[in-house]
Amino acid sequence: MRDVAVVGVGQIKVSEHWERPLREMAVDAAMRAVIDANNIELKDIDMLVVGNMLGEITDTQAHLGALIADYLGIDGIEAYRVEAACGSGAAAFRAAYMAVAGGFADIALVIGVEQQTNVFFSDITLGLAMAADAEYEILHGASFLALNALLKKLYLDKYSDVSEEDLAMFPVIAHENAVHNIYAMYRYKINVSKVINSPYVAYPIRLFETAPISDGAAAVILAPLEDAKKYTDTPVIVKASEVSTDRIYLASRDDILLPKAIRISTEKALRRARVERKDIDFFELHDAYSIMAALSLEASGFAEPGSAPKMATEGAYHIGGDLPILTMGGLKARGHPVGATGVYQIVESVIQLRGDAGKSQVDGAEVGMAQNVGGVATTVITTILARGD
Amino acid sequence: MRDVAVVGVGQIKVSEHWERPLREMAVDAAMRAVIDANNIELKDIDMLVVGNMLGEITDTQAHLGALIADYLGIDGIEAYRVEAACGSGAAAFRAAYMAVAGGFADIALVIGVEQQTNVFFSDITLGLAMAADAEYEILHGASFLALNALLKKLYLDKYSDVSEEDLAMFPVIAHENAVHNIYAMYRYKINVSKVINSPYVAYPIRLFETAPISDGAAAVILAPLEDAKKYTDTPVIVKASEVSTDRIYLASRDDILLPKAIRISTEKALRRARVERKDIDFFELHDAYSIMAALSLEASGFAEPGSAPKMATEGAYHIGGDLPILTMGGLKARGHPVGATGVYQIVESVIQLRGDAGKSQVDGAEVGMAQNVGGVATTVITTILARGD
Repeated sequence: MRDVAVVGVGQIKVSEHWERPLREMAVDAAMRAVIDANNIELKDIDMLVVGNMLGEITDTQAHLGALIADYLGIDGIEAYRVEAACGSGAAAFRAAYMAVAGGFADIALVIGVEQQTNVFFSDITLGLAMAADAEYEILHGASFLALNALLKKLYLDKYSDVSEEDLAMFPVIAHENAVHNIYAMYRYKINVSKVINSPYVAYPIRLFETAPISDGAAAVILAPLEDAKKYTDTPVIVKASEVSTDRIYLASRDDILLPKAIRISTEKALRRARVERKDIDFFELHDAYSIMAALSLEASGFAEPGSAPKMATEGAYHIGGDLPILTMGGLKARGHPVGATGVYQIVESVIQLRGDAGKSQVDGAEVGMAQNVGGVATTVITTILARGD
Repeated sequence: MRDVAVVGVGQIKVSEHWERPLREMAVDAAMRAVIDANNIELKDIDMLVVGNMLGEITDTQAHLGALIADYLGIDGIEAYRVEAACGSGAAAFRAAYMAVAGGFADIALVIGVEQQTNVFFSDITLGLAMAADAEYEILHGASFLALNALLKKLYLDKYSDVSEEDLAMFPVIAHENAVHNIYAMYRYKINVSKVINSPYVAYPIRLFETAPISDGAAAVILAPLEDAKKYTDTPVIVKASEVSTDRIYLASRDDILLPKAIRISTEKALRRARVERKDIDFFELHDAYSIMAALSLEASGFAEPGSAPKMATEGAYHIGGDLPILTMGGLKARGHPVGATGVYQIVESVIQLRGDAGKSQVDGAEVGMAQNVGGVATTVITTILARGD
């Protein structure tokens, strides 16, 4: 098994790109990654893995591996799509990482892409609900938003010292950091009052606690670490990429507020990477809803159950704090183009570890963790990356 | 990189299972594979890869990796879905194979599953068309069947000595072999006259040249070869599993009648397996339409262009012939539950190589090849398997 490095990254601005076909966004992000890597041309790529959830719903299109390889002009290569709901991007990364580590591919391209704004809102709501259990949840009208609302309600009931204001710090942090990210959808600051005075979209979740419906594409290029210096001066090592799952039907879980897929994938990743929690310099977590940000921190073992919102209020998660999170805006402010999100998280982590994050830079960042969540913490992929120079 | 073996296989009868939920079919096939393997229990499985194309359309359900892991009672493990249109099954196998070979998983379960008969025919027709190019083909009303019809028309025009009767031999062979397969959908013989007198479904393709809309699930368990004898007396070695793609929009291809994804994936597989064409004892090809059977044989280099139908008529492809194909019925008679088909092909190949194929047995079979096709030969996965004892 070879060590693997990220040698090129690319992304387009997350936005409402309803005028841009999915395939065009994917090719745009991929070309940026190819340009970012030195001495790699399209013809050198021998594998493509695409992360996407909603292609059938939004573009009447399956078979995105071959489609995007074709539109990149590299048809002939190995290509397919990996799907794990909103975790599709990092799951695709995981598949490509294994291929390079095992010697099955030398230069692998991972593209996360999602187009959501070109269809009616009701179609997207149904599409996203397909991350949940169709027969036991969707059938009863439980949208994905509704399931997260139940989670927030349970959390606030259980931890009565947590206020809405505390939880509202997660979107505040996200927006604060997005200001400096030219690829972010919402580049403006908000405050706690803005969050807790925004309307409910599904009680008790308020509008400013939710990541926006958005379009985007991000790409990374993987190569064996031993060759990485040929392609970049600042290789970033993939120390771990580990997946775990939980029961899909929420009512069947033992402890819905400490999702085991988060815990297990984090523990596997730390073990594989041979690092400890204190070594993690920043954490790109999956704040599709602010409740999910809290659960990620707590189930990952970075905060005691019920304590993450209070720690957010106390400043632990700002850039400069103990564990900076959402350093370029997170899902809330960078945007959440579902199947692309996991790849955006990795792209942003790589930029941090290269020291190229500008005003978002975490000082001396050497090890970063990205955690991509499919469903209500049903599939969780935890990736640990480290400076390779 | 470790050698990998198939140590357990399971399948359910391909049929119209409109009363059975997708998840239940998947669990049924998986449990049969677990029972087939000695000394493997569910708790030993550390990875699940699901091959499925149409879950969103037929079951309003994405996220099948986590869903099926949950319903198997092994939530917590690594799981996701791989999609490559009708090639999803073998693409899922490829991903799991790489994981075991690279040391990322020790016992990996691959499930191919598809439910098609529980929705309206028009929905399935649209769903299957998503294997093609939505913006350039589907938009013009080109169903998947229509695209294959164009291919047959081109083939008959180019090779004027090929008769409809010659091409009709492929379904005849499939039905002949399905008689002995208890898991096949259509277990009766047909003759050439039956095929060429059946009605056109899309000129010039006739009803009896098409694989049926059907439901099913198949599963295999992979383990490192060095451990294989613990789990089975008859391990089957995965000698190669290689993927290639072609341009998705048919009109943009150089030579539509010699699909390069078939050629490249076959050549890569033969090279990786270190075997020659003459060493292949049987070939489970992808006869979704009889024209595709001919193209598979020709582009794979087992027949000169334009000659496969005539060779079929001359008996080359019957059991006992030079290169038996479709030994348990193929897509035409066993049935074609899209994302499950690639796994069925591998299950059947394993049964042949174990010498357990009964009246369908190819005498002395030591090396077999299975080829799963996504789209109109757009993604092609070629798997070479060999007796491991």
